[in-house]
Amino acid sequence: MTEHPQELLTAYSGRMLAELDWLATFGGDAEGGVTRLLYSAPWLQAQMALMDKMQELGLTADFDEVGNLFGKLKGSQPELKPVLTGSHVDTVKNGGKYDGAYGVVASMMALGFLKAVYGTPKRTLEVVSFCEEEGSRFPLAYWGSGHVTGALSMLDGNGLVDREGVTMLEAMAEAGFETEPARLYPARREDIGAYIEIHIEQGGVLEYKQKQIGVVTAIVGQIRHIVVVSGASNHAGTTPMTMRRDALAGAAEMVALTERKALGEGEPLVATVGRLEVKRGTSNVVPGEVEFTLDIRHTDAVAMDAFRDGLLAEFREIAEQRGLGIQITEHLYALPVAMDEGISAEIEAACDYYGYPSWRMPSGAGHDAQLFGTVCPSAMIFVPSQGGISHSPKEYTSPVELVNGFQTLVRVLYQYGYGGKADEDV
Amino acid sequence: MTEHPQELLTAYSGRMLAELDWLATFGGDAEGGVTRLLYSAPWLQAQMALMDKMQELGLTADFDEVGNLFGKLKGSQPELKPVLTGSHVDTVKNGGKYDGAYGVVASMMALGFLKAVYGTPKRTLEVVSFCEEEGSRFPLAYWGSGHVTGALSMLDGNGLVDREGVTMLEAMAEAGFETEPARLYPARREDIGAYIEIHIEQGGVLEYKQKQIGVVTAIVGQIRHIVVVSGASNHAGTTPMTMRRDALAGAAEMVALTERKALGEGEPLVATVGRLEVKRGTSNVVPGEVEFTLDIRHTDAVAMDAFRDGLLAEFREIAEQRGLGIQITEHLYALPVAMDEGISAEIEAACDYYGYPSWRMPSGAGHDAQLFGTVCPSAMIFVPSQGGISHSPKEYTSPVELVNGFQTLVRVLYQYGYGGKADEDV
Repeated sequence: MTEHPQELLTAYSGRMLAELDWLATFGGDAEGGVTRLLYSAPWLQAQMALMDKMQELGLTADFDEVGNLFGKLKGSQPELKPVLTGSHVDTVKNGGKYDGAYGVVASMMALGFLKAVYGTPKRTLEVVSFCEEEGSRFPLAYWGSGHVTGALSMLDGNGLVDREGVTMLEAMAEAGFETEPARLYPARREDIGAYIEIHIEQGGVLEYKQKQIGVVTAIVGQIRHIVVVSGASNHAGTTPMTMRRDALAGAAEMVALTERKALGEGEPLVATVGRLEVKRGTSNVVPGEVEFTLDIRHTDAVAMDAFRDGLLAEFREIAEQRGLGIQITEHLYALPVAMDEGISAEIEAACDYYGYPSWRMPSGAGHDAQLFGTVCPSAMIFVPSQGGISHSPKEYTSPVELVNGFQTLVRVLYQYGYGGKADEDV
Repeated sequence: MTEHPQELLTAYSGRMLAELDWLATFGGDAEGGVTRLLYSAPWLQAQMALMDKMQELGLTADFDEVGNLFGKLKGSQPELKPVLTGSHVDTVKNGGKYDGAYGVVASMMALGFLKAVYGTPKRTLEVVSFCEEEGSRFPLAYWGSGHVTGALSMLDGNGLVDREGVTMLEAMAEAGFETEPARLYPARREDIGAYIEIHIEQGGVLEYKQKQIGVVTAIVGQIRHIVVVSGASNHAGTTPMTMRRDALAGAAEMVALTERKALGEGEPLVATVGRLEVKRGTSNVVPGEVEFTLDIRHTDAVAMDAFRDGLLAEFREIAEQRGLGIQITEHLYALPVAMDEGISAEIEAACDYYGYPSWRMPSGAGHDAQLFGTVCPSAMIFVPSQGGISHSPKEYTSPVELVNGFQTLVRVLYQYGYGGKADEDV
């Protein structure tokens, strides 16, 4: 296999770490938190500054109509579809400096390194800094990759307002983007040959398993429900136990059942009750109504649906036995998205080359890659998250781990741009 | 037994119902709700108007220093300690028209009837309209009966402020009461021989058992806790089930256990988790912290404590097994208060006389009578609450039931003022 010039790779690795710190200054606070909401001033400054960096690295940088930033390293063989790599530049409110940003910076520096060392590739390689993935400002996620893949159109932004009452279109216009909303798919691209994203794990599996690199097999499907359990609100002192219809006691049984059945089902299924509210809950009143969320994820749609059906049937039985009402609303259903076996094998080969212990694993979180996974071969590289923490200023991946991921990505991109995979469609 | 002149009793019964409607106009709204918070304008107007009514009925009416209103029917034998009867005039916010008010009006009209028919009693009989019982304006209950019995002093009002930032002393002064806060027990009375309170049940037992009158055996003791369960807040997608420390799953097990153990223990014990909050709960995050209340009530202190000890030990075991932290804070401990057997027997005798089906039962709610129960013989008469509802505009007791309770009270007060119990200490 090709031996990259190690000294230069080390230099670019160091620069990659420095650029990551630099990017965190846009929207960063003194406590290490980062807030770059879509189309906000720090977001725009970050994208503009990234554009400059891309140009410095010799890439042709430009925005699309919705604010996604592309840096192109044009290939010599136009018949080969480009490989796109990157992640998103937006963050949650008071998020960390790695989520999304690492993928943008690592991809940009990888292309910079490859151009510096090998010049023009056969296949066009592109880095992308997606405008939005988190859904933190407007109640819609994947605004960036959704537009590029055609999963979202401008219509999906209609009626969306942020907490200050600013509409999506107003925010776009203020940041200088799309002024002609009649074009439904202003940023759609149908030329992408493959998509590769490097990202922090946002979970604790790699750390626990003592692995350096996660090779993502699939991004889990997800079903989200809201469950409302209704009983009778009664005085906690004057209502004997046998005369109660306690909505919380019923809900508690359902929460406990959810955990028990999920443990019984085994990995990769997870099921979570993350929010539970006792309506008008007060210490001396038997709860009359409880609302909770139920989030089920699995890499296999059939298994996910079967688990959901069984669990909800038991919920209804519990409610009936207790004389409680139950209302279950599904408000999100996303199919699992498989990652590409071919690219994943290249990632593993790169890990083997460097001696990084790798681990095949599902992604339990959503990523831009899941939008691409339905339109072109896509893959993801995970690096460990200390304590599994993300969406927090405490988000942390060590410099060594960040560099290992970066060098893995460089090797894979080399393969598709210049190496053994550069002469064929992905 | 004495036969009261039925025509006049019927007339006073009708007037009692009318006065109950009239009292509900003070602080009443169009939807049937009543709000008379301590020392507020509607509260003061109600107490002033009640004072006038008491005087019209031939009672000597006066306020004490904290705003309790007494109407005295002076007896001929000053060596006999007075029997006090009544309830509280304050309400919760948007409460009903029966809670407290019924006891005030029924007691006042009972004394009015007795005076009209029998003139001066042997023993002094007094009606009281306590200024406060609910704890709805300031975070302290039993401000009225607490002062009369010496359970509370002016010091207990120190530092208390309502939602508008008004202090207890400012509110008192504005309503025209206690301007010399240095007197710790300005309203304490040590001359009361017995206390009898008629009140709506605020539960559904009498309705369920098809009984007319509840004879209260004891007011339950109560222990209130706040339980905080802490685990690890993690991403709901990326954290495998076996790697979670889910605070809500642990709390749900505790809630379910509370109900199961309470059902196993049997009446009169009740245990309730009325409030449960998932801190920063959101659908895609494994809950890191849950706080819930635990309310345990029983008429027997030893059984109450034993139940508490057993339950909390199991809570701690659940937490330990799950690797969760648990912090349990007791923030109220009230001993059960037994009602007087002698007066209760008189109540039952009155029920038997009229043919009202009666039922011995604990009071699961707190009442002014529990303050008196520790300093003098005390008793309570319950009338049914439709659907067990109280603290709501939907609070309802039928006129027939209200009159049955009233006539029972009249008979019992006759006994202690003029009849077979009028020549001896209670």
